[in-house]
Amino acid sequence: MRQVEGTPCSRLGAMGFSESDVISMLNNHFATSDPRVEVGIGDDAAVITGSPRQVITTDMAVESVHFKRQWSSAFDIGRKVTAANLADILAMGAKPDYLVVALSINAATEFSWLEDLARGIAHEAKLGGAHVVGGDLTKGEAITISIAAVGSVHEPILRSGAKVGDSIYISALPGWSAAGLALLQNNQKAGTEIEKRAVKLFQAPSIDYAYNSSNANSLCDLSDALITQAEQIAKASKVELAFDPELFSECDGFQELRELASQMNADVYQWIFAGGEDHVFLSTGTDLPGFKVGKVRAGEGVSGLEMKKEPDTWRHFN
Amino acid sequence: MRQVEGTPCSRLGAMGFSESDVISMLNNHFATSDPRVEVGIGDDAAVITGSPRQVITTDMAVESVHFKRQWSSAFDIGRKVTAANLADILAMGAKPDYLVVALSINAATEFSWLEDLARGIAHEAKLGGAHVVGGDLTKGEAITISIAAVGSVHEPILRSGAKVGDSIYISALPGWSAAGLALLQNNQKAGTEIEKRAVKLFQAPSIDYAYNSSNANSLCDLSDALITQAEQIAKASKVELAFDPELFSECDGFQELRELASQMNADVYQWIFAGGEDHVFLSTGTDLPGFKVGKVRAGEGVSGLEMKKEPDTWRHFN
Repeated sequence: MRQVEGTPCSRLGAMGFSESDVISMLNNHFATSDPRVEVGIGDDAAVITGSPRQVITTDMAVESVHFKRQWSSAFDIGRKVTAANLADILAMGAKPDYLVVALSINAATEFSWLEDLARGIAHEAKLGGAHVVGGDLTKGEAITISIAAVGSVHEPILRSGAKVGDSIYISALPGWSAAGLALLQNNQKAGTEIEKRAVKLFQAPSIDYAYNSSNANSLCDLSDALITQAEQIAKASKVELAFDPELFSECDGFQELRELASQMNADVYQWIFAGGEDHVFLSTGTDLPGFKVGKVRAGEGVSGLEMKKEPDTWRHFN
Repeated sequence: MRQVEGTPCSRLGAMGFSESDVISMLNNHFATSDPRVEVGIGDDAAVITGSPRQVITTDMAVESVHFKRQWSSAFDIGRKVTAANLADILAMGAKPDYLVVALSINAATEFSWLEDLARGIAHEAKLGGAHVVGGDLTKGEAITISIAAVGSVHEPILRSGAKVGDSIYISALPGWSAAGLALLQNNQKAGTEIEKRAVKLFQAPSIDYAYNSSNANSLCDLSDALITQAEQIAKASKVELAFDPELFSECDGFQELRELASQMNADVYQWIFAGGEDHVFLSTGTDLPGFKVGKVRAGEGVSGLEMKKEPDTWRHFN
């Protein structure tokens, strides 16, 4: 999940090493040549051979780093961590089936807060069609919620499937969660309907569980920033993702989000391109659901996602 | 995993609620009637219908609570957290297949420490025949390692399978890990071979991955205390587990462990019955591998595991 405070792990300057150094090292030590592992570290989730194939992922959230109790209810925090895991399964074109939940609590954790957290996890799991089948409860310093999700799919849709000539689609306009976070970070009371919408979309994600990705050639979810995930598809597929920034203005909600950015003296494209954690799906193919925002071309990298300043992005290592 | 410091979560008096209150509440909110979930929360791991069946579990370890960097190398910590997960899969009579690793690190985490941790995880995974297929890396306060494991089994062996007339077996003598922890807590230098053995078995578990549980009627691993896990089998199977404390003295290593307890003015039976985290297997049936330590009788509860003082036990909620 995206951090809500502090330096992103991608900028571990004080530690003398970067997040990508750690990820490369982990990938190196965890590399496997087992033929049953069709997709290991490097996509939204791992894919294991079988009929159906098994899809496995994990996502951890830490209090003060990924959520703040004064900003979100326990119910919403539970929903959000669960959604992050479910979205990684959906981002493989797969169906979420089972979750296990590991939880560390501290002396400041109230029973009622824990119960609301459990309700939020159960609520979001149910929306996604998944069942919590196990867990671990322990004491810790910060409240930490680590979920692993197992799903199933007959034909997974990978980051590596984008083809030259594909159109690029987003299932909805990203950036709302980042806008909500900005409002909370500014200690700004959400007064208008637009502000309330942004804060709500930060607090509790709104995943389209009915999103039909079956015709997509490549797919991922925007739990990280659009620009980061687009680069991952471009790299994995050995193509260029050429976005047309004009097309984002045709997405539902763009005018409202731009208005909010303008009021806050923010760059709306910073939110859209680098915001992250919207659980919007990014796909390539032909006639896919959502909004067309670019084309896949021969080449490499990502174009058309220019912002006013360098984004704080964040990457998973799975 | 067992805590190495502080009040066990089972005694959350200061919080106004107990661990079992939380576990009951979580079980309540996460209850599922999905027929694919053959075993949900309540055994060492969940079992999902299929051929083979899928087995899923998770286990989390937090710095200062479950491990101390001054007591264990990163390699051993990696091994130990991985072993805790693999043991839960083996305790279902299943074969470990895949792991996902979620990791929170802080500013005090060195790259070399992380690399040793990864090596330890990879080493233990390989011993258990499992592959790390994904993960999540994040910043946090305390270093937290949360692993989820997925395994497979044709016929799972449950806690509920113990039958009146079964003998009770342990695959090895438990208590060594508790003895090692006691030595470290006393700041006692491990001088003798016996002390070194205890500390080593605390730092890095020694799971018998070749342990053959196929004929067992019921099975679990002693990641928690023997007395706790025996009670779980007794309750799930609706029988009494009648231990014969004399029989423990016939297990390999008993004399050495008793000698060590005597030197430290400790109760050897406290270590054996309430120590936990030995990853020894507790099973019931006929002619099983390991040491026979009692009989299954009609009745309820556990007898024969009396100690000098009330144990600090610890339970998982999966």
